[in-house]
Amino acid sequence: MTAKPAKATRYKAVVSYDGTEYAGYQIQVGSRTVQEELEKAIERVSRQKVRVFCSGRTDQGVHARGQVIHFDLEGKVDTRKFSYGLNSVLPEDVRVVSVKRTGADFDARMSASGKEYRYFIWNHPALAPDVRKYRAHVWKVLDVKAMQDAAMRLEGKHDFAPFSANPGREIGGTVRTLTRLRVIKKGPEVVIVAAGDGFLYKMVRSLAGFLLRVGLGELDPQSANDILRAKKRTGVVPTAVPQGLFLWKVDYGP
Amino acid sequence: MTAKPAKATRYKAVVSYDGTEYAGYQIQVGSRTVQEELEKAIERVSRQKVRVFCSGRTDQGVHARGQVIHFDLEGKVDTRKFSYGLNSVLPEDVRVVSVKRTGADFDARMSASGKEYRYFIWNHPALAPDVRKYRAHVWKVLDVKAMQDAAMRLEGKHDFAPFSANPGREIGGTVRTLTRLRVIKKGPEVVIVAAGDGFLYKMVRSLAGFLLRVGLGELDPQSANDILRAKKRTGVVPTAVPQGLFLWKVDYGP
Repeated sequence: MTAKPAKATRYKAVVSYDGTEYAGYQIQVGSRTVQEELEKAIERVSRQKVRVFCSGRTDQGVHARGQVIHFDLEGKVDTRKFSYGLNSVLPEDVRVVSVKRTGADFDARMSASGKEYRYFIWNHPALAPDVRKYRAHVWKVLDVKAMQDAAMRLEGKHDFAPFSANPGREIGGTVRTLTRLRVIKKGPEVVIVAAGDGFLYKMVRSLAGFLLRVGLGELDPQSANDILRAKKRTGVVPTAVPQGLFLWKVDYGP
Repeated sequence: MTAKPAKATRYKAVVSYDGTEYAGYQIQVGSRTVQEELEKAIERVSRQKVRVFCSGRTDQGVHARGQVIHFDLEGKVDTRKFSYGLNSVLPEDVRVVSVKRTGADFDARMSASGKEYRYFIWNHPALAPDVRKYRAHVWKVLDVKAMQDAAMRLEGKHDFAPFSANPGREIGGTVRTLTRLRVIKKGPEVVIVAAGDGFLYKMVRSLAGFLLRVGLGELDPQSANDILRAKKRTGVVPTAVPQGLFLWKVDYGP
């Protein structure tokens, strides 16, 4: 939990970004990060030194449509004007979608009840130029039915250690509930929608990496069950490239 | 019509491009153009000097998902390998979707029976960063129902001179048939789909400019009828920004 200064008001903001030009969400010395851009912009508009907390960091090259952050400001600001002000000073690859006043106990990470990620795959030899930085590119025709079969086997409450890039260092263990793992075909695109109560390190990219191997015929859909049973990461599950991944939305509430 | 060299084979190709970094489709001395990139790539792969002809040029900043071109090559090439070869030498903002052998009388422009354009509008104060170069951005909430009403009045066969940026110089007059002009809302996006037997100079951007004014409440939907009746371009119809526009597909055949 983050300490709240006296007489401060807490704000919740929804943020979108194009991760292409960033070393990831979280501040790192010597690298361009989304967090640093947000803190600089909030400081510039509010004239207050501010620390920003997010629902969960995203890695280098990963995008967001609905990342959520919280931060504290002394006094109250007009959230609409503040949001416009932020967008006027932020680089165009980071946008504030909305800013709302929230309770002092709201925490972007701890208060989240669930998250949705979307992983976008362009499944045609020619990657459409307008989406080239926001899609994984797969030439060979994917067997979407097999991917859907495998995805269904992964829905529900499981030990997802085989889909964590660092299972030994996961806080709170490796059991999570995937409320939805769907594979949707839309013309030349295949979209993986992953929703759940929480995600392990690089879990969605690992799920996507596995589903892509199934789609390419390298693994059977039934292997999903074997992988879950093994309860540990193996070379069978690759991590898919970051540029196909979007943090789509974060849910709060009951 | 384009002269066909002896013993040449004609090829038809579907091409996508991101128009952001181009001065438009058509070759201009001293500017980067899509046509020049295509001709350079075809020459490099085929080792033949080639002239490329398109279904209709697109302006600076306009994109394409389904532009169609034709060109002649001496001898026959493996179209699949040729297409892969072109994509390996083309810049990543131009892609060849497919290449097919076609008859000597096929002409990308003259043989076209119809075209579809899509104009994409992001209707929210915060433009999503991943689509920022491919959308017109409108902050104020658009009245989509009014836009749909206005669009319906423009469907059909009309003198579209009021929607040409240069009605006096249109070859073959200014009467065209808009087989479909639809306004579709998808979350924060509003998409204008325009299909017809032919389009005048900057016609889709003019239709979009008019529909946006209707959506913003500056014009009544009924004004569509008055504008058509006037049969000339007036200041009432603006030209919408190019980056929202995609040449989506070109139809051939009966």
